[in-house]
Amino acid sequence: MLSLSKRAELMPASPIRKLVPFAQEAKKNGIKVYHLNIGQPDIKTPELFFEAIRNFDAPVLEYALSQGDIKLIDSFKKYYEKCNIDFEQDEIIITYGGSEAIILSLMAIGDPGDEVLVPEPFYANYNGFACEAGLVIKPITTKAEEGFHLPSKEYIKSLIKPNTRAIMISNPCNPTGTVYTKGELKMLGEIALEHDIFLIGDEVYREFVYDGLEFTSLMHIPEIRDRVIICDSISKRYSACGARIGCVCSKNKDFMKTIMKFAQARLCVATIEMLGATSLINTTKEYFQEVNKEYQKRRDIVYNALLNIPGVVCEKPMGAFYVVAKLPIDDAEDFAKWMLTDFNVNNATTMVAPAAGFYATPGLGKDEVRLAYILKEEDLTVAMDILAKGIKAYSNK
Amino acid sequence: MLSLSKRAELMPASPIRKLVPFAQEAKKNGIKVYHLNIGQPDIKTPELFFEAIRNFDAPVLEYALSQGDIKLIDSFKKYYEKCNIDFEQDEIIITYGGSEAIILSLMAIGDPGDEVLVPEPFYANYNGFACEAGLVIKPITTKAEEGFHLPSKEYIKSLIKPNTRAIMISNPCNPTGTVYTKGELKMLGEIALEHDIFLIGDEVYREFVYDGLEFTSLMHIPEIRDRVIICDSISKRYSACGARIGCVCSKNKDFMKTIMKFAQARLCVATIEMLGATSLINTTKEYFQEVNKEYQKRRDIVYNALLNIPGVVCEKPMGAFYVVAKLPIDDAEDFAKWMLTDFNVNNATTMVAPAAGFYATPGLGKDEVRLAYILKEEDLTVAMDILAKGIKAYSNK
Repeated sequence: MLSLSKRAELMPASPIRKLVPFAQEAKKNGIKVYHLNIGQPDIKTPELFFEAIRNFDAPVLEYALSQGDIKLIDSFKKYYEKCNIDFEQDEIIITYGGSEAIILSLMAIGDPGDEVLVPEPFYANYNGFACEAGLVIKPITTKAEEGFHLPSKEYIKSLIKPNTRAIMISNPCNPTGTVYTKGELKMLGEIALEHDIFLIGDEVYREFVYDGLEFTSLMHIPEIRDRVIICDSISKRYSACGARIGCVCSKNKDFMKTIMKFAQARLCVATIEMLGATSLINTTKEYFQEVNKEYQKRRDIVYNALLNIPGVVCEKPMGAFYVVAKLPIDDAEDFAKWMLTDFNVNNATTMVAPAAGFYATPGLGKDEVRLAYILKEEDLTVAMDILAKGIKAYSNK
Repeated sequence: MLSLSKRAELMPASPIRKLVPFAQEAKKNGIKVYHLNIGQPDIKTPELFFEAIRNFDAPVLEYALSQGDIKLIDSFKKYYEKCNIDFEQDEIIITYGGSEAIILSLMAIGDPGDEVLVPEPFYANYNGFACEAGLVIKPITTKAEEGFHLPSKEYIKSLIKPNTRAIMISNPCNPTGTVYTKGELKMLGEIALEHDIFLIGDEVYREFVYDGLEFTSLMHIPEIRDRVIICDSISKRYSACGARIGCVCSKNKDFMKTIMKFAQARLCVATIEMLGATSLINTTKEYFQEVNKEYQKRRDIVYNALLNIPGVVCEKPMGAFYVVAKLPIDDAEDFAKWMLTDFNVNNATTMVAPAAGFYATPGLGKDEVRLAYILKEEDLTVAMDILAKGIKAYSNK
């Protein structure tokens, strides 16, 4: 019989998009839906991006270089210098967003059946990338009560097997908002050295750190510079998600040579979007400061609202624009669906992402949701009020 | 020791890009290099593309839908109607060029170790896509003397094993310029039905067919519509290679459901480039007619020049903008390199692609080159004259 691959069967559907039909139905019925379920910011994309694009004037839209436009690579290089990260031009390859950076990295370091350790809850699409590459994600379970910080070195070491190829972290973390401490990164570095494995850092939220906390990159740990892979993206940093521009960077020459072979096979990344992205390096410091202040305000609104809901467990998230909160309910998926189908306050409701999809361990996260604080102050305040009322009404059902 | 994957080792480097350093060196030394080695057309991209992009006016560059912008999907649907192919909206998913369409298709139908039959010589990057997906390409050898048309049904059937998942063709063919006949496609259809496997048609050169020949799509064979996968791209059709916009289409619902899961994992394709691509459906028929006439003229220049070189074997190519020719030399790679390092006519030389990289069978294609006729008339005439003189000089060494 004409059949698809096992990979096709194993490939997970997006756990976030599963509830979309219910949201669409609610909207059809005249209900306003506040989306706290997705990471699409409402912050204006810097005008520089659009100016650059409007000024494109070559008669032929040609292929770009496979490693990416040299000017864009150079703009990333300068950006990293400001972050105290010294990547050379040939240590940066432009990708289709952070997504391609991660999937190519997994393909370069692992073969089908090989394992990668990832703190859970983790960005749900990691499962998809691993499935495409044939790799298996083994979770390092972290807990809401501990602010989703890492467990002990001994515990993490106990998870490592001969076919473990890397530890991958999202820092600041999507979905938890956790910012790993320098001590935690050093510990991961020690493990990577002791077991001779790679460390993949998904650092697309690097600028989104609050309360004056300092961000530490995996590249800031000198001992492990030969085995660190940084996956990056302009999507959140410049509110340019639709550009699909990211990069993968490493000082490991063999790794970069492999990424270059993958990059050559798919020819190049979109020429026009690279042009727009190149101009973004000129974005002023003030832009980031304003954006950061705005998100910190939003974080406070969400966190304070959660604190005031009886039974919610949630440490203060320090980065990114997400938080995972344990709710006083049994089944967050049912709750999220119910909010869309059966609940509203003045014809408005709030959509949240059930957190189980961010866990690899079956059964975990069933009473948790991820909230993305990507709406402006007024909307966020209303959305959190509706959520609080919804939790109360759902519990009293 | 910190090591990469077996896949990283197996991943082929681009055979075309290997000679690039010699071309760069030649240019440094003041030699003009006519590039017949790459498929980057010099035809103007329709102005409609740039107009659409300049008119983008949303304040935030947001994620698009994972399946692609609905307007773009609809524009592909209308385009297919004109080609007598009836794809519905949910049978079309937008991809990063034809490249992503192919790699996702391979991942959907095959698991590591599974095989796909492809007529050789074939587009070299198929090797890369297969390697990334863990699949193995088994060649169906075709010959210059036979215009690279397919061998007998019996022979092709003899290559099929229990883990053969599909037959994939490029039609019109890159690198050979061969346009498969309706009879050949029907034969492949029969094989696909008898062995219950998929048929993947890379039809990105659909419009590039000469001498009034009619193009037949795999979708024009009614019996196999449940198992045909069409991989497509706007790159060549509208001279918009840098847009990286393509699509994968099929009437097989399970297949499309799987592609959608892959598409969701990488979120979406570039928003701005999709906008430009959407406008291209309005490109006038006259554009295609002019472009077609131009390429036919170029094909004639190249083919007639090849006919006049003693010892060259080459049937008239009927489509795409490539030709593979057997030259009266032993080692086309050495010859191509020598043209760049040791030969010039009035400080100009011609760069060609050695064809061995397009074969999977070791040893085949060593005396063949691929020429892309993507230069304007005058340049092409000079380039072919230099090539003829080069072959003579190289043979007399």
